[in-house]
Amino acid sequence: MSEQGAAPVGLSPELEALVTRLVDERVQGRLQDIESTLAALKGDSTACANCPEDRATLVVFSGEMDTLFAALTIAVGAASMGMQVSIFFTFWGLTALRKSKTYEGKSTAQKMVAMMLPDGPAKVPTSRMNMGGLGPPFFKYLMQQRNVESLPNMVALAQELGVRYVACEMSMGVMGVTREELLDGIDYGGVAVYLADAARSKITLFV
Amino acid sequence: MSEQGAAPVGLSPELEALVTRLVDERVQGRLQDIESTLAALKGDSTACANCPEDRATLVVFSGEMDTLFAALTIAVGAASMGMQVSIFFTFWGLTALRKSKTYEGKSTAQKMVAMMLPDGPAKVPTSRMNMGGLGPPFFKYLMQQRNVESLPNMVALAQELGVRYVACEMSMGVMGVTREELLDGIDYGGVAVYLADAARSKITLFV
Amino acid sequence: MSEQGAAPVGLSPELEALVTRLVDERVQGRLQDIESTLAALKGDSTACANCPEDRATLVVFSGEMDTLFAALTIAVGAASMGMQVSIFFTFWGLTALRKSKTYEGKSTAQKMVAMMLPDGPAKVPTSRMNMGGLGPPFFKYLMQQRNVESLPNMVALAQELGVRYVACEMSMGVMGVTREELLDGIDYGGVAVYLADAARSKITLFV
Repeated sequence: MSEQGAAPVGLSPELEALVTRLVDERVQGRLQDIESTLAALKGDSTACANCPEDRATLVVFSGEMDTLFAALTIAVGAASMGMQVSIFFTFWGLTALRKSKTYEGKSTAQKMVAMMLPDGPAKVPTSRMNMGGLGPPFFKYLMQQRNVESLPNMVALAQELGVRYVACEMSMGVMGVTREELLDGIDYGGVAVYLADAARSKITLFV
Repeated sequence: MSEQGAAPVGLSPELEALVTRLVDERVQGRLQDIESTLAALKGDSTACANCPEDRATLVVFSGEMDTLFAALTIAVGAASMGMQVSIFFTFWGLTALRKSKTYEGKSTAQKMVAMMLPDGPAKVPTSRMNMGGLGPPFFKYLMQQRNVESLPNMVALAQELGVRYVACEMSMGVMGVTREELLDGIDYGGVAVYLADAARSKITLFV
Repeated sequence: MSEQGAAPVGLSPELEALVTRLVDERVQGRLQDIESTLAALKGDSTACANCPEDRATLVVFSGEMDTLFAALTIAVGAASMGMQVSIFFTFWGLTALRKSKTYEGKSTAQKMVAMMLPDGPAKVPTSRMNMGGLGPPFFKYLMQQRNVESLPNMVALAQELGVRYVACEMSMGVMGVTREELLDGIDYGGVAVYLADAARSKITLFV
């Protein structure tokens, strides 16, 4: 301003104060609103209503050693990378959560199911090359040779890493599986619980 | 301004008018554009080109009682929660849509496939504990005890809830399945139809 | 300004220059920042941190003719529609990438696995109706009748279309599969490689 010379110098400070005040009154408040909205939009995925969160949700339906191992490897990997991970165990997959087996208080048919299903993740068959039960120890041997964690260790590791385990209540009811037979620290729910997690997830799998 | 005293009071109203006009000319238009763009970005999920819709899309490849039941439970649950649900039935999964079986107009090989495949969802085997055909009635009994819907009822229920059924035309061609053998009110298509729905979905599963 | 008449005309040009400069100093820089941020948010889907890209990522765990065929049909379809497609081949799925089989340098247990697994995608069983090995030629015949590509052709076609193949290094280690036995031009990695692709994908499947 002072370089321009034409304006009366004595007026300048008052003029600057006036202009500054008017600009601030009319503009700065709105600018700040806009900037904070923008920051929220950029930083916050929920600003985009249908945008997924950094989350993976798996249905584990199969109950074989190899399918369970694949599912838990993905879950452990995702949790290690900081993702929120949920696994919904249903049907044969419930075996992964089994810590014991009881026959008490079950109907005859439910006792038959209990008898035919494996005692827990340490006792599951393989989906191929099961060879009448020789497959699982054979693969355990191969995995040990490569220092790969066993399936029961993977089940425990995922839980330690904060992976959420949900046992399907409908499957438990049909097969007669009780809460006492399953791991501690897990959740129980139906398809709505699964869908609530899955609908917020980047990765959804059915294993 | 008037409190500051130093500026010639006579100038103030004209100065204020001048500054206001200049600020408005130079800033307000752009602010309004920005604010309306922001409002659109916040309110409209489609502003984010790759954001999924409230939609779930399943490939149902397996054709066993338990896998079909799991897939339909998820579909019915999602549709009940207001999601748009599509199921693309392919390979063994086509059995879920079968209402009858014909041998007419089929090649010898296609007749063999028809003979070996189940008549429909009421006749499918289980993926484990099939026990030479004893598994399905055994599980039907267990499900009835718990008031769980039968598989044929789930197929009908999902369709009533607006779940879109798409039969894979390539699988139909290879296996010799005709439209007359499948349910009414379903769509027919190939992988492109599946992908169009899946690419817009929060939840994508292969069962 | 000149129309209003009340302000001293001689002051106007200098006043306008002053006000313009002050407004520009205090506002225009921030407006430009906001506008470029907004443009990036609107035009670029990655601006939304968790928004998926136009991408599909599959885990292929199963190694049967029908499951592999379904997975590759989806991959070829998605690549044809311009999507980026990755397939992570693990466990039995590794067979799809096998071009030869060697026994050299393998432990006895790994030789047993090699012996029991198919030589490659042309030799895989079907998941149902395998009929002691009669299933695969039967389905190949049915597919030829309908001019459907064979499984080895689908494996080659997907690779030509730019589908990324990743062989699971942990599975290779456990089963004793070497890089020499697998196709050229593929990547090798663990679950972290899979998750990096999957977390950016619209479609995630476990086959």
